[in-house]
Amino acid sequence: MVHVLITGAAGMIGRKLTQRLAGDGTLAGREITALSLIDITQPEKPAGFAGRLSLATLDVSDPEAVARCIATRPDFVFHLAAVVSGEAEADFDKGYRINLDGTRHLLEAIRREGAKAPYRPRLVFASSIAVFGAPFPEPIGDEFFSTPLTSYGTQKAVSELLVADYSRREFLDGISIRLPTICIRPGKPNKAASGFFSNILREPLAGQEAVLPVSDDVRHWHASPRAAVGFLLHAAAIDLASLGARRALTMPGLAATVAEEIEALRRVAGDKAVKLIRREPDAVIAKIVAGWPRTFDARRALALGFRADASFDDIIRAHLEDEFGSRVPVLQHG
Amino acid sequence: MVHVLITGAAGMIGRKLTQRLAGDGTLAGREITALSLIDITQPEKPAGFAGRLSLATLDVSDPEAVARCIATRPDFVFHLAAVVSGEAEADFDKGYRINLDGTRHLLEAIRREGAKAPYRPRLVFASSIAVFGAPFPEPIGDEFFSTPLTSYGTQKAVSELLVADYSRREFLDGISIRLPTICIRPGKPNKAASGFFSNILREPLAGQEAVLPVSDDVRHWHASPRAAVGFLLHAAAIDLASLGARRALTMPGLAATVAEEIEALRRVAGDKAVKLIRREPDAVIAKIVAGWPRTFDARRALALGFRADASFDDIIRAHLEDEFGSRVPVLQHG
Repeated sequence: MVHVLITGAAGMIGRKLTQRLAGDGTLAGREITALSLIDITQPEKPAGFAGRLSLATLDVSDPEAVARCIATRPDFVFHLAAVVSGEAEADFDKGYRINLDGTRHLLEAIRREGAKAPYRPRLVFASSIAVFGAPFPEPIGDEFFSTPLTSYGTQKAVSELLVADYSRREFLDGISIRLPTICIRPGKPNKAASGFFSNILREPLAGQEAVLPVSDDVRHWHASPRAAVGFLLHAAAIDLASLGARRALTMPGLAATVAEEIEALRRVAGDKAVKLIRREPDAVIAKIVAGWPRTFDARRALALGFRADASFDDIIRAHLEDEFGSRVPVLQHG
Repeated sequence: MVHVLITGAAGMIGRKLTQRLAGDGTLAGREITALSLIDITQPEKPAGFAGRLSLATLDVSDPEAVARCIATRPDFVFHLAAVVSGEAEADFDKGYRINLDGTRHLLEAIRREGAKAPYRPRLVFASSIAVFGAPFPEPIGDEFFSTPLTSYGTQKAVSELLVADYSRREFLDGISIRLPTICIRPGKPNKAASGFFSNILREPLAGQEAVLPVSDDVRHWHASPRAAVGFLLHAAAIDLASLGARRALTMPGLAATVAEEIEALRRVAGDKAVKLIRREPDAVIAKIVAGWPRTFDARRALALGFRADASFDDIIRAHLEDEFGSRVPVLQHG
């Protein structure tokens, strides 16, 4: 008998989390009787959910709107709402308004609701490995400092600190999970500097050309959308007492080079798919990517039972299952 | 020909910094022609300052008041205003309002001023080793993560992240310096959990009894008020380009046990002074202090030329010089 709230429910991960919760019908072993979905654009109605469903178009930077939402006292809050890295860098005000003030309004609404009558929901905050910036140790350990090189990373790091303090004060029971770069992102190629990690798999799998702007030896830290949803669900279910005041956790991921990605593509979809990757070195993207973390020692998360994808072959197979029902589109185009 | 602004100018460090600047008449090798002092209580007029002086009673949590202050375009901003740890823990709203929103209003006022006409002041933010919380490595290195165990520490850690991001975006040229526990704090004994580090020296030096609530082997990280003022001045003067995006620095300090403090007192003021220390173990204070950092490897700050007190003998001598003109009061009380 639990009520679940998802902010940013219309986003890619939000939609997948919603669909998974609607399908499971349970969270942390308890029946989901109410699901509240909010986003700046109208969230979609998930298929097959029998409980009470609430869909709302709402800006998390509006404290009154957030307070009205929290007044319904959800037991679980997944806080996914955010403007992405590129937008937060291009529009300084908007990034701080959504990614920092939005988080703070949500935490404050929970605290104020709890001041009226006891209330201490589980809050799962989707943070990012963007809280880290080069130079790095290899691998990056759980005690390495937050050194963001973007306003987005700064806003995530600040939100982590707030989630930890509000948890320590027992206003809520929160955890921040730092998601790896999501790969394979479904949908169209976008202009994100990280887009190519997905593009060079997703497009060839669909029989389309893809551009690779960096060299094959670039290493990065990945998780499938399915693994990311798994992290969120696990974070909602586990006992957080052992975390103490240290409520931010780097999620396990798959450290892989572009070359390893490509070899996995070859194994799953053959040489024909690999030939659709066109190398077009881009010095700007190469420079951005050089500042990104490559590999982590995420032992705290592993000890708590968070599990990464086992291989890039698995990431590709999960993509095919989730997006195409396991059909390999390139084989059909051949 | 520079204009210097100090927030929190009526506080202990603010007053000492003000007096030093007024006495020197220069900062970073340039003549100070204007000095603006703001605090929630009226700052004192410093002795011997020949330039334009502005004293204002102002709450940093009032964005319009802060903007009016920044509209005078100071070249250097020392941001010391804060409510202390105990108060930020007791009054959650006030702590966030002053220590987080206050910093943000100041940074935003600078950014908005710079949007009108080029303006990029040097900002020196007084942070604290309270951004760290146990368990710790020994010593704590420059890349150890911020794990505050208080709302005060959280607010300082958030402010550090903001100073770094606003610096990276070139809205200002900022540095956050994490001050050690200040010892010997002049004035009366207060109820701060850290108070005894100062009390057991200051009171016996004045011929008064002092209570020691922890065991003699407690080790902590100290700086004299004089060293703290030196850090602030040095932070204002050095080139920060080498810091890149990593704008928060742990200041060097003196790692010393209570026993070492007491032996220094004995060397400077004799057994008679030491006998004025009364041992009254306090389990609550002992527990709080056990969560505090003991020693740091502050090599980044050392490489930039920041210098700690050389010994506790020096800390005591600096106290006697600064507060009593080198007279040892206990010897007079004999």
